[in-house]
Amino acid sequence: MLSVILAAGKGTRMKSSIPKVLHKVNGKPMLKLVTEVIENVGITKNIFILGHKKEVVLEEMKNIEYVTQEEQLGTGHAILIAKDKIEKYKEDILITCGDTPLLKEETLKNLKKAFEEKKLDCIVLSCKVKNPFGYGRIIKENGKITNIVEEKEATNEEKLIDEINTGVYIFKYESLIYAIQKIDNNNSKGEYYLTDAIKILTSENYNVDSYQIDDESEILGVNSKVQLAQANEILKMRKNIELMDNGVILIDPKTTYIEQEVQIGEDTVIYPNVVIQGNTKIGKNCEILSNTRIENSSIGDNVRIESSVIESAVVEKSATIGPFAHLRPKAYLKETVHVGNFVEIKNATLEKGVKSGHLTYIGDAQVGEDTNIGAGTITCNYDGKNKHKTIIGSGSFIGSNSIIVAPVTMGNEVFTAAGSVITKDIPNKMLAFGRARQVNKEKK
Amino acid sequence: MLSVILAAGKGTRMKSSIPKVLHKVNGKPMLKLVTEVIENVGITKNIFILGHKKEVVLEEMKNIEYVTQEEQLGTGHAILIAKDKIEKYKEDILITCGDTPLLKEETLKNLKKAFEEKKLDCIVLSCKVKNPFGYGRIIKENGKITNIVEEKEATNEEKLIDEINTGVYIFKYESLIYAIQKIDNNNSKGEYYLTDAIKILTSENYNVDSYQIDDESEILGVNSKVQLAQANEILKMRKNIELMDNGVILIDPKTTYIEQEVQIGEDTVIYPNVVIQGNTKIGKNCEILSNTRIENSSIGDNVRIESSVIESAVVEKSATIGPFAHLRPKAYLKETVHVGNFVEIKNATLEKGVKSGHLTYIGDAQVGEDTNIGAGTITCNYDGKNKHKTIIGSGSFIGSNSIIVAPVTMGNEVFTAAGSVITKDIPNKMLAFGRARQVNKEKK
Amino acid sequence: MLSVILAAGKGTRMKSSIPKVLHKVNGKPMLKLVTEVIENVGITKNIFILGHKKEVVLEEMKNIEYVTQEEQLGTGHAILIAKDKIEKYKEDILITCGDTPLLKEETLKNLKKAFEEKKLDCIVLSCKVKNPFGYGRIIKENGKITNIVEEKEATNEEKLIDEINTGVYIFKYESLIYAIQKIDNNNSKGEYYLTDAIKILTSENYNVDSYQIDDESEILGVNSKVQLAQANEILKMRKNIELMDNGVILIDPKTTYIEQEVQIGEDTVIYPNVVIQGNTKIGKNCEILSNTRIENSSIGDNVRIESSVIESAVVEKSATIGPFAHLRPKAYLKETVHVGNFVEIKNATLEKGVKSGHLTYIGDAQVGEDTNIGAGTITCNYDGKNKHKTIIGSGSFIGSNSIIVAPVTMGNEVFTAAGSVITKDIPNKMLAFGRARQVNKEKK
Repeated sequence: MLSVILAAGKGTRMKSSIPKVLHKVNGKPMLKLVTEVIENVGITKNIFILGHKKEVVLEEMKNIEYVTQEEQLGTGHAILIAKDKIEKYKEDILITCGDTPLLKEETLKNLKKAFEEKKLDCIVLSCKVKNPFGYGRIIKENGKITNIVEEKEATNEEKLIDEINTGVYIFKYESLIYAIQKIDNNNSKGEYYLTDAIKILTSENYNVDSYQIDDESEILGVNSKVQLAQANEILKMRKNIELMDNGVILIDPKTTYIEQEVQIGEDTVIYPNVVIQGNTKIGKNCEILSNTRIENSSIGDNVRIESSVIESAVVEKSATIGPFAHLRPKAYLKETVHVGNFVEIKNATLEKGVKSGHLTYIGDAQVGEDTNIGAGTITCNYDGKNKHKTIIGSGSFIGSNSIIVAPVTMGNEVFTAAGSVITKDIPNKMLAFGRARQVNKEKK
Repeated sequence: MLSVILAAGKGTRMKSSIPKVLHKVNGKPMLKLVTEVIENVGITKNIFILGHKKEVVLEEMKNIEYVTQEEQLGTGHAILIAKDKIEKYKEDILITCGDTPLLKEETLKNLKKAFEEKKLDCIVLSCKVKNPFGYGRIIKENGKITNIVEEKEATNEEKLIDEINTGVYIFKYESLIYAIQKIDNNNSKGEYYLTDAIKILTSENYNVDSYQIDDESEILGVNSKVQLAQANEILKMRKNIELMDNGVILIDPKTTYIEQEVQIGEDTVIYPNVVIQGNTKIGKNCEILSNTRIENSSIGDNVRIESSVIESAVVEKSATIGPFAHLRPKAYLKETVHVGNFVEIKNATLEKGVKSGHLTYIGDAQVGEDTNIGAGTITCNYDGKNKHKTIIGSGSFIGSNSIIVAPVTMGNEVFTAAGSVITKDIPNKMLAFGRARQVNKEKK
Repeated sequence: MLSVILAAGKGTRMKSSIPKVLHKVNGKPMLKLVTEVIENVGITKNIFILGHKKEVVLEEMKNIEYVTQEEQLGTGHAILIAKDKIEKYKEDILITCGDTPLLKEETLKNLKKAFEEKKLDCIVLSCKVKNPFGYGRIIKENGKITNIVEEKEATNEEKLIDEINTGVYIFKYESLIYAIQKIDNNNSKGEYYLTDAIKILTSENYNVDSYQIDDESEILGVNSKVQLAQANEILKMRKNIELMDNGVILIDPKTTYIEQEVQIGEDTVIYPNVVIQGNTKIGKNCEILSNTRIENSSIGDNVRIESSVIESAVVEKSATIGPFAHLRPKAYLKETVHVGNFVEIKNATLEKGVKSGHLTYIGDAQVGEDTNIGAGTITCNYDGKNKHKTIIGSGSFIGSNSIIVAPVTMGNEVFTAAGSVITKDIPNKMLAFGRARQVNKEKK
């Protein structure tokens, strides 16, 4: 099966310089969400109908097959433009919109199944809604769809119909090609409506049916920033319910923002106002307290994190982080490591049992097992031109406010005196001092 | 037109030592919100009816014209007390309550227009509500208001009426003066009800009408802290919808707290749990991540801010801030400046391209273009008595943990060694050292 | 009166290694919540029916009287197992479930009162619900309960009944013992249902009645993580409404997380996304800004806290804290103390008027009145083996980046030069220097 995704619209109501279909819902551009659902159903050939700012869309979507709809003259027009491409494949065609990012995989599967089992020429995905105003109504005779009538052209009686067109269809290849050529633009807007294909086919006794869903949230079209926020909320809650069903404890799912790809283990507690993004995996029995953002990171079991930002880092089991810690890319905290308040770790490995509790910057470093890093320690990794490495052995004690001017290598069980500037290597078990002596004087 | 605002009530249910009308809704005292809406409609003369803690109200509202209602004997009584003032102006009178902060400008405009176009003696603002219990009901004959009946005195039939009195009226000057003198207190509470004026006028064939709105949220009276929270939520969502309609992206409008005056540009993304207050202006295409509070500040385009607090600061385009940064008053970050984690800036200008990434305090300072401030740098601006200034030239490199004892002036392209205490000026292109030499010893 | 609490269930749908009844709702295990409500009604003897992971439950609940239900063969079976214990007391019996943590004290009081006043053999707590599907329906004749019919066995007519069984009962001792022995397991599931006791008693003309509540939220049974989140939300809002009714200002009660025991004074403003836990008491007129977590602490009047974490600390009136401060256990801030950004206080007393504004760690210390602690000050309280104390007198000025190697005692009105390492005591009014002299050099 082939898929055609309508993604040419400008979306004026979005008030945006970003193409409508690239607006993100729960962290991902709508067009990618739609494409992923289609791929999960097993359809891998997509033809995109692009128009408004197509070069921006192409940059984001990479290597896609597309046609350009310069003027937006209706959904039928869009398909007409894609006709050549469609004829290349000669396969049945799923048609969806790039601005309905909430469509469920299960729904598309069921639609496809119904289409195939009933050997239809066309199937329309319909939805029962509370307030059908503005939507195309599904007209049926003897329980079968015969037409789709737009709001404007609906009679008063038709307006009462609450089963509406979602804009998602599957067509048999030949039937689509046949119908699409008969669509005209003799209507008030002068546009070519794909919905006309339904009437054309049914009036000629083609085999057309509809498949109805009941969850309105699936068909939300995003045409404004308000609708974008609604879509965000729906997708967020779907993910959160999935996580809770898998045993994750969300204190307040309404204020927990977890992106689609994230995996979290059983009995991990996520407090309110936590953001977890990208390709992040969190283990079991963790506690992720409020005001934490984790992105593209791997967190082991039994880890506790409070009010911290963690980006592209690895944290092993039973580590404790924060409050107010910042793990930057390539921070690697091994098991039971403690990183406390106002501590930043960047491109550094802290071996098992390392403690860095307060006011510290560790960058481009390696710290051995069970070493204690005193408050105020700073690795001076940058000399204005290049970055240099700090290596500290195991079982060491870095006194508070040690300023380590990299490159420096320290052995195991070394001790640096508080307030020292360390500029030279320290062999195993040595003490290093680099500070002035205290003198008391009378006040003048 | 003249306005009379009833603001004398104690609001016992507020359980508060703050006068009811000074409680804040989305950052602003209710009485100010009401006054602003009235002024936006073009009515600039307000007479306030004050009573409970009037001196506190006067301190907040500054230079207002008011009368004092010592005892609260009803809304009619309040107007009677203001009679002398009203007679001074001899103008038509809008009457509102200081505890209904959600009334919309558009509503008042429409009310005024209807009053004027229909040349009425009095117009009552009414509202259709779901549950009219407790409200005064609008009694109509032949589609025109004839009376307002309070809950207590309503017949069972009248209790079914769901059009209620909002407590907002416009009176013709002479009609109000006439009616107000005929109101008595022959009722169960022994109070003078302004609503009686309606019956008095209609029974004598004055020209009285009502103007009905349908949005219940507009007429919420705030009499308790629970209602205060409701009012906060409603006003917050109004502002958020306005922002989204203008192209701002709010990931979760339900947890985004933006005060009325704030302006934000198109496609700027506001993450959940962001608070933006006072006279703040934010440009286009910014990213304001969670846990940020911005107050009275100006933020340029393409700025990224995470988990930071920004107070009375200016940030130019393409700057990046946080996480965990604190810009205090008179922080001025020019374009592309980076202020990173655990950095505080106060009364300091950072020229274009300055980087201050970690654990730093810059106060009372000026930092030249492209200068790099190492981790742990502190400007010692205070000597226990006075504040002193630090001046750093452009293209300089301030080594980590440089302690700068102001007043100090550094030239361009200077270099301070990590861990130095800088007490003296540094000429252009000089290196400054102020640290002890490292010595390694055997452990005892 | 005796209480029997059913707490043996595994709760498979919880997807958890924690016993179901130990899952926390608003900070407290469900089983404790249920027990507390029962104790507040004046019932102090509880028999717990334990089963799944009973040793974990026993560890949490400490010193409770219990029986073990190895196999879960129904609620009747559970009571049968407890029969010997029940016979020991010979008192009337309240039966509740450990997984319905939202039952209100008032409801149990009313149930008990009705039971006692009407001299009943049994009273069933029932609830009117919107969707009775899945619940046992209350069958009545002439207004009196005669039976409880489970969903499966209900006729179509019975399924329409919206008064359902909550699983809470009070039985007369003799009546329970009598009925429980007549319950059999001749039903589809082969279980012993306690509900059968109702039919047994009513059919033999025992005096059985029901007491109906209308608030569905009270009877929510927690069988999944989704329901756990719902229970959290309900209990949170109950607490928040209680606080607002007492005069506390919650800007957004939906994102304010305050545990049951917390007390807060009038007119204190709690901003969104604040977490307050354990045995915490907060005074009047405070401002607790967003992103603050306070646990087991005492906060005086007029305190302002922003974006900070406070654990087991005491803060006296008019102190200001944060943003980004961390008070750890035994931090004691006396009145008007200021603790600013990136400051950590642990086991330390700051006397009245002390200021510690930036980037500081104060641990195991005592700081005298009005002393000013410069930015970057660190008490080096740990030498790798032991913790030592820092004592600073009053009226002193600790220069920025002073590194205090404890144990150190400083007198009053001492002055330490910025960037000094302080290793020795400083007498009253003395200046201490411990830093290198600055040298400027040409760049190579």
